[in-house]
Amino acid sequence: MVHPRVLQALATPLIGHLDPAFLAIMNDIQARLRHLFSTSNRFTIALSGTGSAGMEAAIVNVVEPGDVVIVGVNGVFGTRLATVIERCGGKAVRVEAPWGQIIPPDMIEAALRRTGPIKAVALVHAETSTGAWQPIEAVGRLCRDHDTLLIVDAVTSLGGVPVEVDQWGIDICYSGTQKCLSCPPGLAPLTVSARAMDMISRRRTPCQSWYLDLSLIADYWAEGTRAYHHTAPVSMLYALHEALCLIEEEGLPARFARHRLHSAALVAGLTELGLTPLPPDEHRLPMLTCVTVPSHIDEAAVRQQLLQTFGIEIGGGLGPLKGTVWRVGLMGESCTEANVLTFLNAVEELFIRSGRLSAPGHALQAATRVYSRGV
Amino acid sequence: MVHPRVLQALATPLIGHLDPAFLAIMNDIQARLRHLFSTSNRFTIALSGTGSAGMEAAIVNVVEPGDVVIVGVNGVFGTRLATVIERCGGKAVRVEAPWGQIIPPDMIEAALRRTGPIKAVALVHAETSTGAWQPIEAVGRLCRDHDTLLIVDAVTSLGGVPVEVDQWGIDICYSGTQKCLSCPPGLAPLTVSARAMDMISRRRTPCQSWYLDLSLIADYWAEGTRAYHHTAPVSMLYALHEALCLIEEEGLPARFARHRLHSAALVAGLTELGLTPLPPDEHRLPMLTCVTVPSHIDEAAVRQQLLQTFGIEIGGGLGPLKGTVWRVGLMGESCTEANVLTFLNAVEELFIRSGRLSAPGHALQAATRVYSRGV
Repeated sequence: MVHPRVLQALATPLIGHLDPAFLAIMNDIQARLRHLFSTSNRFTIALSGTGSAGMEAAIVNVVEPGDVVIVGVNGVFGTRLATVIERCGGKAVRVEAPWGQIIPPDMIEAALRRTGPIKAVALVHAETSTGAWQPIEAVGRLCRDHDTLLIVDAVTSLGGVPVEVDQWGIDICYSGTQKCLSCPPGLAPLTVSARAMDMISRRRTPCQSWYLDLSLIADYWAEGTRAYHHTAPVSMLYALHEALCLIEEEGLPARFARHRLHSAALVAGLTELGLTPLPPDEHRLPMLTCVTVPSHIDEAAVRQQLLQTFGIEIGGGLGPLKGTVWRVGLMGESCTEANVLTFLNAVEELFIRSGRLSAPGHALQAATRVYSRGV
Repeated sequence: MVHPRVLQALATPLIGHLDPAFLAIMNDIQARLRHLFSTSNRFTIALSGTGSAGMEAAIVNVVEPGDVVIVGVNGVFGTRLATVIERCGGKAVRVEAPWGQIIPPDMIEAALRRTGPIKAVALVHAETSTGAWQPIEAVGRLCRDHDTLLIVDAVTSLGGVPVEVDQWGIDICYSGTQKCLSCPPGLAPLTVSARAMDMISRRRTPCQSWYLDLSLIADYWAEGTRAYHHTAPVSMLYALHEALCLIEEEGLPARFARHRLHSAALVAGLTELGLTPLPPDEHRLPMLTCVTVPSHIDEAAVRQQLLQTFGIEIGGGLGPLKGTVWRVGLMGESCTEANVLTFLNAVEELFIRSGRLSAPGHALQAATRVYSRGV
């Protein structure tokens, strides 16, 4: 769901992407993104592509052929990071954990000690395929100790839980607009530390991607230069600007608390229905709840009925989790008590219809208890 | 300018990018793009990036390290093509012509005969930096004769002049949404022949870009598979769909005639003001008129006044043409008699104010003569 003000912003008549009035909007987006990422990084922009383009930009700008990158693999997006590293001639050292678990920082430390010179460590903060919430701060310290860059995928986390780029020592952090920012998909917020920009400027080889070359994109976004690189997606940037205004109006602490509250109510209700979260409680993301579905339930059929009868879309499992989990998003504008209760009610009703449940109301009661006492 | 119906489409509430209702829109976009490109290519999609991402996708999917590509260089975008070819390890054989001129097909032929095995020939159909209109059909025949792929940049031409992908033998053709399609920037329409898709499937090395890997993107757009790759920019695709509907309602022949008419009127008026088109008449694009500005005119000051006083944005010169030309776009929804006359009037007024012109009205009269007699 997207706020009506964001839809309205999308429909703003267009002006040229180098028009001074539009450059002012770009400047304001940069300032608001710095606040969101908790960073003072000069290079903080919205890349003209989806979150996956953000991932590719983060990798291809720093990894040169032969460079070694330690990558945490515990779901779809860690796996994708390793692929992107290998596509640009890098060597991906995979540190693996079961899907639904985090990558323990001490496994990263062991890999850092074991392996020769390491260009970067890459981790997914919020693994959308499993709901696991990766701790970053401890890894940031390790990366400083080993003089290694830290690259973090915050596609699903940004705007829903704290992302402390400077405090945690993240060098490159990218996100997507369509998760907790509640803006349509199409842009990748991206911030890069001075340390990483310096490394990029000293590459031995030109970045293999011209479109995602951050040294060229820096000149396009920087006040003063504004050197033409490509034509920015004007309407999408209007929308992002409005979404960032809405986030600032709510305030980040209130926004994070809202995600925690509704997630707790959702989990309480789902647990009552026999669906238990896959990640352990202490590593469970609030905006994306991945629950194991008992095998006697035809999970795909229920998802289809949810969409067709109730207009509620939830995700199925990916990769090894296909057919065994549901992924329920409560992100940004969609993270509301109304959505939690409507969804729980719909699932209860479908379970009752299929004879899997006889006494209704337990899930709603469990959720309501959370709302009464808070988290 | 974008039609109000396109702005309205942008503001449509979002649905999931894998929702069956959205997949139907993707199918319809594919069908309408095939019509626009005059092709039956199965792989005809809108790439999730701007026109420059389309260029990069066209190159990195077929060019492997060591491959030789002949590239026409007569402006900014031919130069950029050569850069992108070199960034993926290809060898760019530049066939050069002065800015404002076309690349003569016999120069391409000579290069094809002179050089060893050639992977592809890459040409810019409408060179936005100079207004030159490159003939493609003759080069298409040469490419078939030499068993070489033909890659064509149709960013500025598509929807404004004929782009006959199948008839001309183009293998990869990409465009942008913000030129003659009158849709906001952010997507790159792209079509790929079966011959090129076959070559892509037989690559020796994986495509260096995961985000732009057309074999993966094909599985995402193809009916039947719809394998998740990235999250499509839903709102932008709504907008493109509506823009394509508007184009079909007008009809391509009428749309092309409209661009010819207003361009002729614009050139007649500008000539009267002492501004002459850079490309020779037979190779002058209708949607982008590049005129030489006499040295006694402070061209940047006039452009700034046009924007500030009249809200009219025109382009300055790029590269070697910086400070010596204006580039006036008449594209899609902006290609109207009202815009032509308003612009000519504004320039006349500014010239009179600066003492460069004493008798007003000549430019408008010249334009009006074109409108009276037609082209």
